[in-house]
Amino acid sequence: MADIYLFILACGVAALLFGAWNVRAILAAAPGSAKMQQIAGAIQEGAQAYLNRQYRTIAIVGAVVFFILWILLGFAVACGFLIGALCSGAAGYIGMYISVRANVRVTEGARQGLARGLDLAFKSGTVTGMLVVGLALLSVISYYLILLGFGASGRGLVDPLVALGFGASLISIFARLGGGIFTKGADVGADLVGKVEAGIPEDDPRNPAVIADNVGDNVGDCAGMAADLFETYAVTVVATMVLASLFFGGTSKETVMMAYPMAIGAVCILASIAGTFFVRLSDAKGWMSKLSSNPIMTALYRGFIASSALSIIGIFFVTMWLPGFLGTTATDGVTYYGFALFLCAVVGLVVTGLLIWVTEYYTGTDFRPVRSIAAASTTGHATNIIQGLAISLEATALPALIISAAIIVTYLMAGLFGIAIAVTAMLALAGMVVALDAYGPVTDNAGGIAEMSGLEASVRKTTDALDAVGNTTKAVTKGYAIGSAGLGALVLFTAYTMDLRFFISNSDVYTSFKGLELDFSLSNPYVVVGLFLGGLLPFLFGALGMTAVGRAAASVVEEVRRQFRTIPGIMKGEAKPEYGHCVDMLTRAAIREMVVPSLLPVLAPIVLFIFIAIIAGKAAALTAVGGMLMGVIVTGLFVALSMTAGGGAWDNAKKYIEDGNYGGKGSEAHKAAVTGDTVGDPYKDTAGPAVNPMIKITNIVALLLLAIMAH
Amino acid sequence: MADIYLFILACGVAALLFGAWNVRAILAAAPGSAKMQQIAGAIQEGAQAYLNRQYRTIAIVGAVVFFILWILLGFAVACGFLIGALCSGAAGYIGMYISVRANVRVTEGARQGLARGLDLAFKSGTVTGMLVVGLALLSVISYYLILLGFGASGRGLVDPLVALGFGASLISIFARLGGGIFTKGADVGADLVGKVEAGIPEDDPRNPAVIADNVGDNVGDCAGMAADLFETYAVTVVATMVLASLFFGGTSKETVMMAYPMAIGAVCILASIAGTFFVRLSDAKGWMSKLSSNPIMTALYRGFIASSALSIIGIFFVTMWLPGFLGTTATDGVTYYGFALFLCAVVGLVVTGLLIWVTEYYTGTDFRPVRSIAAASTTGHATNIIQGLAISLEATALPALIISAAIIVTYLMAGLFGIAIAVTAMLALAGMVVALDAYGPVTDNAGGIAEMSGLEASVRKTTDALDAVGNTTKAVTKGYAIGSAGLGALVLFTAYTMDLRFFISNSDVYTSFKGLELDFSLSNPYVVVGLFLGGLLPFLFGALGMTAVGRAAASVVEEVRRQFRTIPGIMKGEAKPEYGHCVDMLTRAAIREMVVPSLLPVLAPIVLFIFIAIIAGKAAALTAVGGMLMGVIVTGLFVALSMTAGGGAWDNAKKYIEDGNYGGKGSEAHKAAVTGDTVGDPYKDTAGPAVNPMIKITNIVALLLLAIMAH
Repeated sequence: MADIYLFILACGVAALLFGAWNVRAILAAAPGSAKMQQIAGAIQEGAQAYLNRQYRTIAIVGAVVFFILWILLGFAVACGFLIGALCSGAAGYIGMYISVRANVRVTEGARQGLARGLDLAFKSGTVTGMLVVGLALLSVISYYLILLGFGASGRGLVDPLVALGFGASLISIFARLGGGIFTKGADVGADLVGKVEAGIPEDDPRNPAVIADNVGDNVGDCAGMAADLFETYAVTVVATMVLASLFFGGTSKETVMMAYPMAIGAVCILASIAGTFFVRLSDAKGWMSKLSSNPIMTALYRGFIASSALSIIGIFFVTMWLPGFLGTTATDGVTYYGFALFLCAVVGLVVTGLLIWVTEYYTGTDFRPVRSIAAASTTGHATNIIQGLAISLEATALPALIISAAIIVTYLMAGLFGIAIAVTAMLALAGMVVALDAYGPVTDNAGGIAEMSGLEASVRKTTDALDAVGNTTKAVTKGYAIGSAGLGALVLFTAYTMDLRFFISNSDVYTSFKGLELDFSLSNPYVVVGLFLGGLLPFLFGALGMTAVGRAAASVVEEVRRQFRTIPGIMKGEAKPEYGHCVDMLTRAAIREMVVPSLLPVLAPIVLFIFIAIIAGKAAALTAVGGMLMGVIVTGLFVALSMTAGGGAWDNAKKYIEDGNYGGKGSEAHKAAVTGDTVGDPYKDTAGPAVNPMIKITNIVALLLLAIMAH
Repeated sequence: MADIYLFILACGVAALLFGAWNVRAILAAAPGSAKMQQIAGAIQEGAQAYLNRQYRTIAIVGAVVFFILWILLGFAVACGFLIGALCSGAAGYIGMYISVRANVRVTEGARQGLARGLDLAFKSGTVTGMLVVGLALLSVISYYLILLGFGASGRGLVDPLVALGFGASLISIFARLGGGIFTKGADVGADLVGKVEAGIPEDDPRNPAVIADNVGDNVGDCAGMAADLFETYAVTVVATMVLASLFFGGTSKETVMMAYPMAIGAVCILASIAGTFFVRLSDAKGWMSKLSSNPIMTALYRGFIASSALSIIGIFFVTMWLPGFLGTTATDGVTYYGFALFLCAVVGLVVTGLLIWVTEYYTGTDFRPVRSIAAASTTGHATNIIQGLAISLEATALPALIISAAIIVTYLMAGLFGIAIAVTAMLALAGMVVALDAYGPVTDNAGGIAEMSGLEASVRKTTDALDAVGNTTKAVTKGYAIGSAGLGALVLFTAYTMDLRFFISNSDVYTSFKGLELDFSLSNPYVVVGLFLGGLLPFLFGALGMTAVGRAAASVVEEVRRQFRTIPGIMKGEAKPEYGHCVDMLTRAAIREMVVPSLLPVLAPIVLFIFIAIIAGKAAALTAVGGMLMGVIVTGLFVALSMTAGGGAWDNAKKYIEDGNYGGKGSEAHKAAVTGDTVGDPYKDTAGPAVNPMIKITNIVALLLLAIMAH
């Protein structure tokens, strides 16, 4: 087994090294004029200040959780939690550190041309992407090996790894929600008071909230998304390993099958690294030119397709190497099973591609949905919103069908473990996907810096071209993030029920499970109640997220109005607004607003369990929690899909009008479209994405609950 | 048993007689001046034309379904379908016939004072309410007795009754969706082109869409709601009877327990009739005065509370009479069970009260939610929408908790049958609730007629006071309708699983169920897929409803613009607009738009069953359908609750501003609030309410599917 572990470790290290190499290339690029550096400096300062404060708050919550886990489940579990939290935090922190340094270099690079700008922006995204998959894989394999080294086995191996996932989860929900509130509080607030009240354009340096807006792009789309996918990656790999230990426990295949998901992740890192070299502008001919009407988008998609293709090849060989393809292991009952698992992995990659395609259909300006919203804008604000809401609801249909088909196909081919492998393969591409996503805030910032430092119009045009693609990549990766979160949570849920089965069948050891007979069927009223209460969580959580953004934005509006009033000369460009004040205020608002909603999914399964256990016994309580887990997955998937797709569609309907359709900028249709865009902001960047970690966290808390009961 | 059946029949007839007595009182009232009668005549004509065309379309679909059922399941089942459809249709048709005649009489009555107006409007609502419960109960008991008379038993008794529910369902989904599209197409279209473009007030006779708007109130809130609650009533009573036959089949209690749900409905009719006499204005003292700050609302709530209290007493005696309270029947294992069932019925009534209270909290101008939306309107259209969406999401929380608590409590007291009895009791109040709801469109129309016929301002003030309460009652009954639909569907779902168990355990008779082993547990991937696909249905259906309204409204806008353009003098009041054209056009649009979405919930379970049966066998298919039924209930409940509550809150936020807050009418805040109100219209009156029948219809189709398999 040593060579497998070495291979996995080496791939993880390779991701970090490749990330470091990209960092060097970015920092070596010219950082632009003094004025540009000054603006970038303000963004850097704000972003760092925000993350420092966010992590300080998380550290306090984390310390409490650490000690609770230590007391309840022992030191190894508490350490797993700590490792997950630290690595996830590090990925977000370093990624953003580079992102806020790459932005100004992209602006400067854009002066030399589109290719240079694209190169730098994508390199910056790649750093975050590689950190996510590299650190996630390394943390899991290292801790796994350490635990093995200490002689751990069975539950002693599983529980600390689940806790590692939980650590990542906790960072993720705080980062997603806090970052989401910050970024959209700034965006909505700046728009309301700038575009609507003062009549100044976006990214105008006279707007005191403009730096906060740029900071927000980074803490939301870069740090937030990184933490989210780090979590999905970690929990999916861990949950698949748990399933492997449950399905193959006691057979000679146990260690091999536990290493298999990590090996898939490892080989896909290599594929992703190779794939990044395919991202370059070219006048592609043939089918390549049909990927997108936009040459930048084509360049990015080419990298993605190359990664996927190479991943398939890589997974093929890994599968041959580990479980094996043909019947050499017939005695363990895994004959021919290897090939089925390989096909499941391919299904996972296909699902990724389809989800990206569907999201682009629903959020791209070339297709019916966005155009219908733009058309509806001509009859006013209300019809824009009605059509947008209709599209957001409709956009859930195809993803739900795709996910359902994938579940059936993989299950028929390779059972429940097949589903888990498909999700693992889907997530193995996370490095590439995060790179595409983290590219977005860099280009967004680059445009802002060009505007604020008054560079020539041609630069702004180049950054705008880069940024337009960034909007698309941000939207499509959200579709991927929610789809994978839903499927990842399903794997966690399977681990929950399998875990329970294991405990009950070994109830002579795990005595608190003695005599329990669990009925997870839909005709059990406790399951139904669990489904309702779990189904409620995303709705309630979404409500809290939306109101938090509303409050944060309102405070920005007040602050900007105050500055306009008390600092004369801002509007004439004679006095400098106090950018830092806005950043500070939003930081405090976001941190304050994120804590209570973040604890909702952590506490909900625990409270439900205790409550039902008291009135109807432990067996009923465990089934109710099971219902809650499934309920949160089902409604969470729909709520998150509809919010992210709807928000993206509103955003691009505005862009479509700004491109000169229906009267263009300044028309009544445009005003209506701006309203839609503003409504879509908290939908797609706060409430929707924050549902992803909440789905997973509810499920992982339930797994820990079982561990506590078994302890 | 004969005395029980006679009692039930007598109560059903009493409802119809009481309705007829109210009709006489309404028609005897003075119908106002010639001008008023002329306007009312136009509304009557339009409403009749709409319903005629709607029923013609339904008749075609219904005839096809009738023959399919005849071929597949025999003549008795097809007849059951026909009876359900005809009675539901009759309740809606007659109710609306009176409603459009009561409106002008309420206007005239309002000239004599508030008390007279309230009396007439509530009498009109009572007619519809009594028709719904009277016809529903009579159709079920009569067909049940006829079937018994023909010697039917077992499945021969159950299947035709289920088909009766299905007949009501089909009317219901068409009426809800068609009516919803008509009413909101008219409302949104009239607002957009009248208030926004032409700058004329609501109900202005110069607006060519004004009659269509008034027609819409009746076909939506009166005929639509009547069909919806007729369906819930019928299917819940039928499903509870099915459960009784499954739980008590073969014991001496079988016939008594099958009559029990009908007897509850019967005695509650008497309670509702008595309750209507408590609806009168008075300067109540003590706790009565605290029901609401509004004297009209207090009058209506007093009637509702009186009905509830009398219902509890009635159910007490019915329960003593039928299952009996104490251990006289110990040999059948139902000792003490009677008292538990009585408590379950009380829980059902408590749930009704709580749901009404929660909905009023979320949609009333006296409380935080509506005021927060009004406050958010001051910063523009977008913040109004964001806050409204947040409230709509939040509003699902308390109802979900209430429903969950009710499920647990009733299950612990009396098992699955206890849940069914609670829902039956909840629905037994439908007569009173429909009366409160159908009061709404009458007062709304009365105000419109006062405005259009240029009556003195004091009349309009009186009708406005009546109408303001009508808005509240419309909102709260929606909360009740969706809550009861969700719980009713849950009873249907229980019938589905129990039915399956019955068929499988008697698979020597029902050979197509031979050897089937069903696993409804959440760890079965087919159940999960079913949950996803079922969960999708309300989202997709909501999207279709919203876009249909958008299209219908746009066509109204076009038509009104055309009339303004081609008929000079409309704006000066010199030429009369062609009201009929708008009504005609909308009728065609609504009928066209309603057919495809209505078939979605009918076909979805059938298609899923066939598809999964082909690839994975019958057992997997039946569990997938089970998952779909539960999925549609869970997400349907949340989608419908959030849409109806959100829409109501937006509506009243506008009213709150119009009452002089945040700058009152004409202010920027008011414009933003109008946008919110317009967005809320299709939310609360089309997509949201139409989800109710779709939840039930999916479940009842699944029951028929089993019947077909067993046949």
